[in-house]
Amino acid sequence: MIPKTDLPQSVKIVEVGPRDGLQNEKAVSTEAKVKLIDQLSSCGLKFIEAGAFVSPKWVPQMADSLEVMQQIKRQPNIRYSSLAPNLKGLETAITAKADEVAVFTSASEGFCQKNINCSIAESLERFKPVIAQARAQDIPVRGYLSCILDCPYDGPTDPNEVAKIARSLIDLGCYEVSLGDTVGTGTPMRTAKVIDAVSKQVPLERIAVHFHDTYGQALANIYQSLQMGVKVIDSSVAGLGGCPYAAGASGNVATEDVVYLCHGLGIETGIDLHLLAQAGWEISDTLGRKPTSKVSLALQR
Amino acid sequence: MIPKTDLPQSVKIVEVGPRDGLQNEKAVSTEAKVKLIDQLSSCGLKFIEAGAFVSPKWVPQMADSLEVMQQIKRQPNIRYSSLAPNLKGLETAITAKADEVAVFTSASEGFCQKNINCSIAESLERFKPVIAQARAQDIPVRGYLSCILDCPYDGPTDPNEVAKIARSLIDLGCYEVSLGDTVGTGTPMRTAKVIDAVSKQVPLERIAVHFHDTYGQALANIYQSLQMGVKVIDSSVAGLGGCPYAAGASGNVATEDVVYLCHGLGIETGIDLHLLAQAGWEISDTLGRKPTSKVSLALQR
Repeated sequence: MIPKTDLPQSVKIVEVGPRDGLQNEKAVSTEAKVKLIDQLSSCGLKFIEAGAFVSPKWVPQMADSLEVMQQIKRQPNIRYSSLAPNLKGLETAITAKADEVAVFTSASEGFCQKNINCSIAESLERFKPVIAQARAQDIPVRGYLSCILDCPYDGPTDPNEVAKIARSLIDLGCYEVSLGDTVGTGTPMRTAKVIDAVSKQVPLERIAVHFHDTYGQALANIYQSLQMGVKVIDSSVAGLGGCPYAAGASGNVATEDVVYLCHGLGIETGIDLHLLAQAGWEISDTLGRKPTSKVSLALQR
Repeated sequence: MIPKTDLPQSVKIVEVGPRDGLQNEKAVSTEAKVKLIDQLSSCGLKFIEAGAFVSPKWVPQMADSLEVMQQIKRQPNIRYSSLAPNLKGLETAITAKADEVAVFTSASEGFCQKNINCSIAESLERFKPVIAQARAQDIPVRGYLSCILDCPYDGPTDPNEVAKIARSLIDLGCYEVSLGDTVGTGTPMRTAKVIDAVSKQVPLERIAVHFHDTYGQALANIYQSLQMGVKVIDSSVAGLGGCPYAAGASGNVATEDVVYLCHGLGIETGIDLHLLAQAGWEISDTLGRKPTSKVSLALQR
């Protein structure tokens, strides 16, 4: 009766705390960001999203991303990435020696308009030269796709629409597409349906999942994704980021909780959970609050 | 690629907040307990654990369980249960007109000794006359089994040991056995193994699961249990109860989060999530803190 599953032997965890997380927190100093990234570099993480080259008018928390990326102690086997949604951003990312860049769009028109002020089709059009130029310089590009299950403006998202846009991002040259449940309303069977739809357009190895834990469902959704063979999971140390749609609610799933789940399932992550939790406590201290990771709260400091 | 699952069409939620929850919180007034139970009675719940007839020396929070059960407004289709670990407790439960009683033991010797001061075998011996007398009066008896995955004193628990004791509880006359991950360290594949072992000794219809969310894994474990056909889930409104092993950590999984998961999976619970969340906010106000339910925090008040 024990289910036969296709759980992967190992997964790649993409740590988004220093960017997607801190972007949605009150501003912290350049020094605190550098310290966080350096601590994360010592935990066994191989992918760290370190900054964003976007307008400081819109995202003041990321205004010092160039300084951050110039001051971190880089480890040889770690990719430090940054958002670069346009050519200007890409230029700065190159100056910053980003190992990888990312572009982001949405699977819902309403969110795309509110978030990046253009239609989905226009966003893809804008990415074309960015992706082409990044690839010309051998910089891998990752694509983020938000609102894959529900949109705060448009309601439920059509899985086939998600698949179509995911395919477009891959066709444009992204090596991987990260499917984001931005509002955190998803549950496992809906997760299964969207992964199924996308996997008919995009090879499974190129699909990452990015869950928010706003309704507490992130780990159940990740478990479903793992059962379907997904091997790349985005998460944020200490649950950094919160939820922009409900004050006091959770946002990004905490990396500590994802690592605990994976290790409990016998899936390798290469990550030292205790060092990771320590990094989470320290940045949380800086922010004047506790980690939202239940594992961190259980382990204490 | 969408997994074929045996998800049940409906589940029975056993609300343990007023007993297992409040027993591990600072004491609240009889009035507050009565109000909580009456609110829970209007949410669509069919099983509410309302009190415990145990020594007030050991569990002062439950000293007024008789008054509570005499003051609640009973609804005709709801079973109000109480713990009754010995004949004296059963006598008071009968006076209180409990619709059901429960006994509790552990799957680990260390926890049994620390918690109820006897061996597992002795605990089962003690239950014999309680169960026999309850059944003679047509009062159904539920059995709780704690530490089914790990014990804070003895380490990992052998699934076959869990199965053996679960079988003993059923053989003694319990109509259902609730398998408790008391320390909340479980992950889904270990959950699958213990349910598999127990289901070889006890019919699946008689197995309930009782997860703590201390490491954030409860919903993933419940999702695993549902996939295996388990149809009874214990949970605590607002996550009442906390964790006795780590200050500030979570204990019982929150009923709101379980209901959200089930409804998202298309599984009926009969419960009105908004009324339930409201009840959770009110008792949390009484306790001077926020619910630990992520769904409640996301929905706000």
